[in-house]
Amino acid sequence: MDSEPTGKGILLKAEPIAATFIDEVRNTTAKCAQPPRLVGILATSSAPSKSYADFTRKQCEELGIEFVLKKTGAALSGELAEGEGVEEAIIEANGDDAVDGIMVYYPIFGGQQDHYLQQIVSPFKDVEGLHFKFHYNLYHKYERLSLSPPPGMVKSIIPCTPLAIVKCLEYISVYNRLLPYGDRAYGRTVTVINRSEVVGRPLAALLANDGARVLSVDIDSIQVCISTSIYYPRHVVHPSTLTLQECLAISDVVISAVPNPAYKVKTEWLKDGCICINVAGDKNFEKDIREKASMYIPAVGKVTILMLLRNL
Amino acid sequence: MDSEPTGKGILLKAEPIAATFIDEVRNTTAKCAQPPRLVGILATSSAPSKSYADFTRKQCEELGIEFVLKKTGAALSGELAEGEGVEEAIIEANGDDAVDGIMVYYPIFGGQQDHYLQQIVSPFKDVEGLHFKFHYNLYHKYERLSLSPPPGMVKSIIPCTPLAIVKCLEYISVYNRLLPYGDRAYGRTVTVINRSEVVGRPLAALLANDGARVLSVDIDSIQVCISTSIYYPRHVVHPSTLTLQECLAISDVVISAVPNPAYKVKTEWLKDGCICINVAGDKNFEKDIREKASMYIPAVGKVTILMLLRNL
Repeated sequence: MDSEPTGKGILLKAEPIAATFIDEVRNTTAKCAQPPRLVGILATSSAPSKSYADFTRKQCEELGIEFVLKKTGAALSGELAEGEGVEEAIIEANGDDAVDGIMVYYPIFGGQQDHYLQQIVSPFKDVEGLHFKFHYNLYHKYERLSLSPPPGMVKSIIPCTPLAIVKCLEYISVYNRLLPYGDRAYGRTVTVINRSEVVGRPLAALLANDGARVLSVDIDSIQVCISTSIYYPRHVVHPSTLTLQECLAISDVVISAVPNPAYKVKTEWLKDGCICINVAGDKNFEKDIREKASMYIPAVGKVTILMLLRNL
Repeated sequence: MDSEPTGKGILLKAEPIAATFIDEVRNTTAKCAQPPRLVGILATSSAPSKSYADFTRKQCEELGIEFVLKKTGAALSGELAEGEGVEEAIIEANGDDAVDGIMVYYPIFGGQQDHYLQQIVSPFKDVEGLHFKFHYNLYHKYERLSLSPPPGMVKSIIPCTPLAIVKCLEYISVYNRLLPYGDRAYGRTVTVINRSEVVGRPLAALLANDGARVLSVDIDSIQVCISTSIYYPRHVVHPSTLTLQECLAISDVVISAVPNPAYKVKTEWLKDGCICINVAGDKNFEKDIREKASMYIPAVGKVTILMLLRNL
């Protein structure tokens, strides 16, 4: 008996999925009179944030986008506190007509104070889709109702990480192209582990609005999100009496985004042949995940950044 | 030896402080062509929320304000989930011209989802001051700069709980009336235990903007908030190397709002004769608090509700 995983399922990295969007962004950028300018705001000494900023620069340069990194707080000097000056940097970029998009590297203070900062970024320059206005539109499915906003209104941005996950599911044909647009996830059962306003809840809303039955799992409850019919487009949410184990047993797709390295989805609970996507920084799936999953995407960050650059 | 606390310090209840605002609200209400209408939205089966709603009704009736309680979700029927329909109830009240103010009884879903709901309430009807716009104005001290907003703009509401605490401090003369308005807490050192966007951070900003040196204590760090001079009105925040024990030893006032019944401020760490205010639902101070504190306010809820009704 071999105790090592045999790795039956396909390991799918984000690069080929991201690649499908590169030409789109490059072509749009090439049509601009001058390159769009993205300002990144780095306010902490966090190494992952710094490498994400470096990666943003690299990606922008490849695509003909001007990237300006504004360092403040502990990112600028060891004398300054973590996050010092970040609010001022956001306000400055909000008011600068030469800036087309603003990206802030979170976490900074964590929790509510980071949420506050996310609301301070002008919705006209929020490329990440973190402003509550956008979540409101998404939960109410307004993004489909009006594709071009009236003058003076801002285009609604879909939060980038949930959108990147949807694009991954389209790429691997979980979304069925033969179904009508807006209903292409019909018939799929998807478990989403995380119900934050930044990832889990907008993702559940997107998938349910597209026809999926979504089991939304949070630390203390499980809900079902479903759109009742294409004539009543907005999804509804019901409480569920299913356990996580029962959810996993019936799910075609399992997406996990739990910011805790100790959290692991049990491979033995998964349905044979399911599709698993890890969105957490640390892996939420066990090493032997591909013994059960037919397809496993370990990270979506490279797709996320392209969704974000498309919003410039 | 008596093992019971001797209760040297003064126990100050919120009623007499609240009473100082009752006439003000009643007189303002009497001048209205018709009574202002406050809609309370109760969406959970939580007993404390229900009694807070009953208390709101009682307080409104006394003051000539019309209170309409809209029940939804588990508050309406055992068949419905906790929080079901709350977003729709808020949107309906937002759009109803007959509604002057909206009060939602939190917690509902907890965490980020409650924050989302707080941003959905129209800032024109938010009597609690929970909208991020108001926090932004407060942190930037705009509330002093423009008392009457330009047409079409909304008056900035100061979050009610922090404001109620300031009113308590004014009542007991921690704010010195002989100092110029806007600087009346000058010379005071205040420890605030809690740094949420709803209570601790706006409170620290209010006190620092009024001249106090505020030690803001959160689970993982301690900061100092201070306004450098009356000519640079906005307060600044620095990290601090003080420990909680060191903060308490030098604080004239200690305010605690930790939502955990197990959390207790150690009486032995307090400065002799300090003033203590408990803002948490469960008491954050030990039983023998009045052995050290010269004055102890065990709850501020009755002042908070008057601050809220003043915003109608």
